[in-house]
This record gives sequence, structure tokens and C-alpha cells, in this order.
Amino acid sequence: MDGWFDHRVRVRFAETDAQGIAHHASYVVWLEEARVAHLAACAGGYTAIRERGVEALTTGLELTYDRAAVFDDVLTIRIRCAEIRGARFRYEYLVERDGTRVASGSTRHATVDAGTHRPIRVPSWLVDDLLSPSESP
Amino acid sequence: MDGWFDHRVRVRFAETDAQGIAHHASYVVWLEEARVAHLAACAGGYTAIRERGVEALTTGLELTYDRAAVFDDVLTIRIRCAEIRGARFRYEYLVERDGTRVASGSTRHATVDAGTHRPIRVPSWLVDDLLSPSESP
Amino acid sequence: MDGWFDHRVRVRFAETDAQGIAHHASYVVWLEEARVAHLAACAGGYTAIRERGVEALTTGLELTYDRAAVFDDVLTIRIRCAEIRGARFRYEYLVERDGTRVASGSTRHATVDAGTHRPIRVPSWLVDDLLSPSESP
Amino acid sequence: MDGWFDHRVRVRFAETDAQGIAHHASYVVWLEEARVAHLAACAGGYTAIRERGVEALTTGLELTYDRAAVFDDVLTIRIRCAEIRGARFRYEYLVERDGTRVASGSTRHATVDAGTHRPIRVPSWLVDDLLSPSESP
Repeated sequence: MDGWFDHRVRVRFAETDAQGIAHHASYVVWLEEARVAHLAACAGGYTAIRERGVEALTTGLELTYDRAAVFDDVLTIRIRCAEIRGARFRYEYLVERDGTRVASGSTRHATVDAGTHRPIRVPSWLVDDLLSPSESP
Repeated sequence: MDGWFDHRVRVRFAETDAQGIAHHASYVVWLEEARVAHLAACAGGYTAIRERGVEALTTGLELTYDRAAVFDDVLTIRIRCAEIRGARFRYEYLVERDGTRVASGSTRHATVDAGTHRPIRVPSWLVDDLLSPSESP
Repeated sequence: MDGWFDHRVRVRFAETDAQGIAHHASYVVWLEEARVAHLAACAGGYTAIRERGVEALTTGLELTYDRAAVFDDVLTIRIRCAEIRGARFRYEYLVERDGTRVASGSTRHATVDAGTHRPIRVPSWLVDDLLSPSESP
Repeated sequence: MDGWFDHRVRVRFAETDAQGIAHHASYVVWLEEARVAHLAACAGGYTAIRERGVEALTTGLELTYDRAAVFDDVLTIRIRCAEIRGARFRYEYLVERDGTRVASGSTRHATVDAGTHRPIRVPSWLVDDLLSPSESP
């Protein structure tokens, strides 16, 4: 598995646009949903992390669209934490439909103190969890 | 004017769907944008209201769609505060394109204390502002 | 069951707002997702219906919000087709969290010819399917 | 002006999230709105382009978030067409608030035949328009 975690989404009608395809901004929301599912599986969930005083901001985003997705498509969002350095970490993603690449990308994040919102190093307990995800469901 | 305040929106491409029309959930966001513009014109803006310790929740919503709107349409959202009673108030809306009705509806709201989130009567200074809106720009 | 069909959604982070709760427009999208799941279970899916030459428009909407939902809440959207008359039909919804009412509402729809977009009666094969849904999964 | 075109947006309440800031997916929609405004100013509008048989797909996206934007912020989206090559073109963006950088990024696009959806070179009349935008309003 190489550390990839899989999360499935079904394209909502509200996520399509007048070109008849899933709007390109919808993918950004799906990647976030995949991060939430990944954190739930490997680190007790985002809410638990916030309760331990750590919040994560999104600092960057990169997406390449290879094929259009359409209404009701079931997509697999493959996600892995690719890099952790100081207060920063990065996820990589593959979006697939029936094994065929639809899109790929990455997001960059920074950990901040949940109270002061100042940058803090990714805590070591979180580093371990992020890099050793549970199996996909 | 009968207390109507006008706010214009232009239909975004992201707000359309695969039927080629503006998705029906988009209107809900436009009504909110019209409320914000109305409050800015008549009551110093939503942020100022929150700073005076009052927050407003949306407790209900009703919309009737008469005609489809499409990408790039310029719509006029006509809004007025129709009723204030205790901790509750209600807005009415007409959505028009070139003078033709596209949709109409209403939203219901409740004022709560910004700190405790418990219901409080709509403050008298806000009642006056809500019922006597400034002219549309 | 009384004809209710249940569909579950998990509140996305992107669906929350700065009040810390699920934005009221998010519910409109969830109701649509529940309709799609209901049609898939009882009428072969929305795509199959369109392929038989019938399209459905949303002509009205009514929602009452009883309690706030927050990020990561798992909500059950209970849906049933409550009325079919000529070219019009209506769905009713209950939104629940752990058996407690969060919101309730209804949507109104009209069937149109997929080619001409002119109103047509809800076909009898669809009437039967809408009123006799499959069991929830 | 160096070819930059400016478009203003005001952060909607629906575009914020439970961190109290504008959700990072909202920017993707703002960039699109800026492209639409840019095309309206320099190339007769997206609808006119489609009527001449050309459609544009979004093939990639890159965003860096420098500062948070919050509800009701007025943001200037600065946009310019940075590159056109064959069937592909690229836009660059700066998102600013009161002259301070909030975010920056780029989007990649491909032109296709509006009928067949097969790639076609960006037409020369469109190349000229894209590279010589009208003044900002």
C-alpha cells in the first residue's frame, strides 16, 4: 500500500456545473474530506487533535485534472502524508475512477497552537500517526 | 420603495449545475448576501451587530422557483424585513431578472446573545434599523 | 417505515461557517443527495430516469432548523415522497442526529420532457417507484 | 499595469468555515469569477466565446495561501493571462487586501471545440484578446 489511504466520494449533483462535469473546485472539498477520513483512521480524528491543542491550516494546494468526472461517479481519493518538516506537512493525492486517474495533486499545511494560532512543530505523536496510517476501511 | 432594499448578484459558473441552470441551493447563499448588504446599509453591518453582543441564527427558509437563472445572469435580490417579534424576525425576498420574477421566498431568524448563544429579544436599536433601511445604492 | 427512506451524510468541514456550525445552505445539498439515493434505491437512479426522457426540476423548498449541526456530525436524512399530482411531486424530510430532530422540510418538483423541457405528467412507472421505495440500506 | 486586470470580491458568510476564516476552496471560485470578468472585459465574455465554437476546460490549479481572509473582507483578485501555447493557456493571480498579499496562484486551461470537445488551438482572435486586456473598471 505504500502508505496510501483510500476514501470514496460520490459526485453530488450540486457539485456539477453547466459544462456537465464536476466543477474543478469540488475536488478541493473532496481532498479535505479525504484528509478528515485519514485523520480519523490514523490519529483519532481532527476534533481529538484540536482538543490536544493543535490546529492545522491549509497553506497551499496543487491540482492537475486529467479527465472529467460526472454526476454520480464514484471516485476513490487516495491520500498519503508525504512529508513533515518542522511546523509543515504535505499530503499527496490520486483521484481515480475504476482504477483510471481522474486527477492528482497535493496540499500543504502548517500546524498552529489552537489557542494562539502561532506556528508550532508538528507534535511527535502526530508525526507517528500521520506517517503510519491505519488500513483503509 | 415600501421598505424593499435591492442587492445585485451575478450568477457564477460554479453556481450552475449539469442541468445548465443556477443550482437551487445557490439562491440560499444569495439571500444571505442580500441580508448582509441590507444590514450594512441599515444597521452598520453584521460585524458591528456582533460586536454589540448580538448574533443572528437562521431558523427557517422558504423558496419558490419560478424561472431558471443561468450563468452570468444579473439578478436583483429585493429584500425587506417583514416582521419582528420578541427574539424572532423574518425577511422577505423577490429575485428578479430584468423586472421578471425568477424566485421569491422568506427566511426566519432568531437573535441570541453572542456570548451565551441564548435567545434574546431583538434589541430596540436593531428593530428600528431593520424596519427603516437606507436607500438601495 | 411508513415509506421513509434513510440516507446518511457526514458534515464536511467545508460545509461549516464562522458561527462554528453547518451553514444553512448545506442542508439543501444534503436533501438533494438524499433524493438521489432514494431514486437509486427505488427507481433505478436519476440517470436512468433521464434516459427514459424525463427530467425533474426543483420548484420549491421549505426548511426549518431546530438544532445546529457541527463538523463531523453524522446525520440521517429521512426522506419520503409525500404527494404526486399531474406534473408535480413533493418530498418530505427529517434530518436527525442520534434520533434527535435537527431540521425538517420539504421540496417541490416538476417533471419535464428531457428534450423540450415542457412539463409532462409524472409517468405512471415513476409514480409507482416513488411511492414504494426499496428498504433503506 | 503589466497586463494585470483587477476584480473585486467580498467574502460571503457562506464562504467561511469553522476556523473563522474563508475556506480555502472559496478562492478557487473567486479565481474563476475573475477569469469571467477578465473575459468580459477583453474578449466579449465567455458566452460569446462559446458561441464562436470554443470552450475552455480547467486542467490545473496551484494556490499558495499567505494570510487568512475573513467574512466581509473586500479582496482584489489581480489576474493576467501569462502564457498561450497551442491549445493551452495559463492565468496568474494575486489576491490582495488593502495592498497586502493574501494568496497567489495560477490556473491552466485547454481550449476545446464546443461541439466535439476535442482540443483545438486557442484561436488567434482570442490570443490577441487574452494578452491585451481592457483596463480594469
